Amino acid sequence: MRKRSTNYNIIEHLTTVFTARVKFNETDPLGIVWHGNYISYFEEGREAFGRKHGISYLEIHKNKFTTPIVNVVSDYKHPLKYGDVYTIKTHILNNRTAKIIHSYEIYNQDGKLVCEGQTTQAFVDLEGDLSLYSPDFYEEWKKKVNFE
Amino acid sequence: MRKRSTNYNIIEHLTTVFTARVKFNETDPLGIVWHGNYISYFEEGREAFGRKHGISYLEIHKNKFTTPIVNVVSDYKHPLKYGDVYTIKTHILNNRTAKIIHSYEIYNQDGKLVCEGQTTQAFVDLEGDLSLYSPDFYEEWKKKVNFE
Amino acid sequence: MRKRSTNYNIIEHLTTVFTARVKFNETDPLGIVWHGNYISYFEEGREAFGRKHGISYLEIHKNKFTTPIVNVVSDYKHPLKYGDVYTIKTHILNNRTAKIIHSYEIYNQDGKLVCEGQTTQAFVDLEGDLSLYSPDFYEEWKKKVNFE
Amino acid sequence: MRKRSTNYNIIEHLTTVFTARVKFNETDPLGIVWHGNYISYFEEGREAFGRKHGISYLEIHKNKFTTPIVNVVSDYKHPLKYGDVYTIKTHILNNRTAKIIHSYEIYNQDGKLVCEGQTTQAFVDLEGDLSLYSPDFYEEWKKKVNFE
Repeated sequence: MRKRSTNYNIIEHLTTVFTARVKFNETDPLGIVWHGNYISYFEEGREAFGRKHGISYLEIHKNKFTTPIVNVVSDYKHPLKYGDVYTIKTHILNNRTAKIIHSYEIYNQDGKLVCEGQTTQAFVDLEGDLSLYSPDFYEEWKKKVNFE
Repeated sequence: MRKRSTNYNIIEHLTTVFTARVKFNETDPLGIVWHGNYISYFEEGREAFGRKHGISYLEIHKNKFTTPIVNVVSDYKHPLKYGDVYTIKTHILNNRTAKIIHSYEIYNQDGKLVCEGQTTQAFVDLEGDLSLYSPDFYEEWKKKVNFE
Repeated sequence: MRKRSTNYNIIEHLTTVFTARVKFNETDPLGIVWHGNYISYFEEGREAFGRKHGISYLEIHKNKFTTPIVNVVSDYKHPLKYGDVYTIKTHILNNRTAKIIHSYEIYNQDGKLVCEGQTTQAFVDLEGDLSLYSPDFYEEWKKKVNFE
Repeated sequence: MRKRSTNYNIIEHLTTVFTARVKFNETDPLGIVWHGNYISYFEEGREAFGRKHGISYLEIHKNKFTTPIVNVVSDYKHPLKYGDVYTIKTHILNNRTAKIIHSYEIYNQDGKLVCEGQTTQAFVDLEGDLSLYSPDFYEEWKKKVNFE
């Protein structure tokens, strides 16, 4: 089972911060955010990253690729409750494969780390075939943003 | 980041099978099940496990504990589409810690493996304190079902 | 605001019954099913209706139409709790417009009515235009199932 | 089936505006926001209303009441797509019953009305009994904000 590869480096200058508020319907009978909803928080962070750095879902789609998630890891440290405001720090990780790897840290309003996660995305073309090479548009994007 | 420990053994005779149908609102603009919804499928599998073997959320609650998820890992192999029927095999893993570790395999109606995952749960008492020891009721349950 | 038209008749012989179990992540901090999730229960009922009577989303799509929801009404009578098993009765209503109107009753395992609802769907063609007339394929379906 | 009572008046000076962005996992295979997710948007609007005017869920809870939703109506006018930014206008309606009635208008980034809705909430005390009278704390709140 694929896991967080600690030898991949975070590209520091691309880290993106996004803040939102826990919704009532995200919490469970224990009064805390249901663990599956953090996957949606990671996506919020990833989308904010994409909008900021010009590599959003719609951008990728325009280049005739999709980037399905092939792996998610989430470590829960501390609960978020209804009314809490959380901040997601989204990083992108340097790696030699045809993959996009993000890591995430979620903090509550007191700056306490509540969750850490990682997602891995593959490149799939419009025929549904997995790309073994990083597509041209993605390599160009990496140059533009001084990735690595 | 905690990951699937391959040296933990599956307790074969406790494996539980649950079958359901992909819902329209679980699918995304790509026409496939949104990756975060598999966390909910794992929970369906875990709940079926709990009902079958007498260790459900309500059972645990009656014993004055909750078992929050502290780690999730999910590996996506193949998409599920609207209309697909999926089967979740839920296993429980032998481990020497005060944790409940489940692993999951999800298959589509053609028997193809679409997703593998793992969840780890800790024991927390009513004061909100993490239990460093496996609670008595859980040890009794393990004896009853010939766990390990 | 469009509402349940009490002068529309239920086509009794097409009523479809679907039973499922409340999921943990459908309940809220009050320990009851979050009200918005009943919209998903209505959809479960509507999909069971479509599968049984040959008028599913995929059937409609094959005929080059979509049937977006234009109105939902939901009346909550009694809460559903975690662990409850609910049964959805889905009806279709006779009406003279180019609309599909379903009504729903949801019962708990004791046969108590917990929720009543209604949805209205319009026919939209592949160009995204609203159809003012009931499409041929739908009229043929109505004849086949002795609708009205 | 309860519906929008057009003889209830909007209390204009209490209207609250909330803006957010459509999330990827809120959209369906048609590429538009799944209709059930608007119930969550109404809740976002209602929570923004509560925070602004001091009548939030937590405020109500402190006064030993809950206010479950007893009726929802939603009229869909125009789809929201992935990437759209929507604005919810939340109103509160004057009414002589022991109920909280909100109405909602949702607009897209071009100012086009995409959805209208209404929710009705009852007062339930900690014993789970429906209150036939508007509780004291709610009447005091109404005075404080010049409701009616």
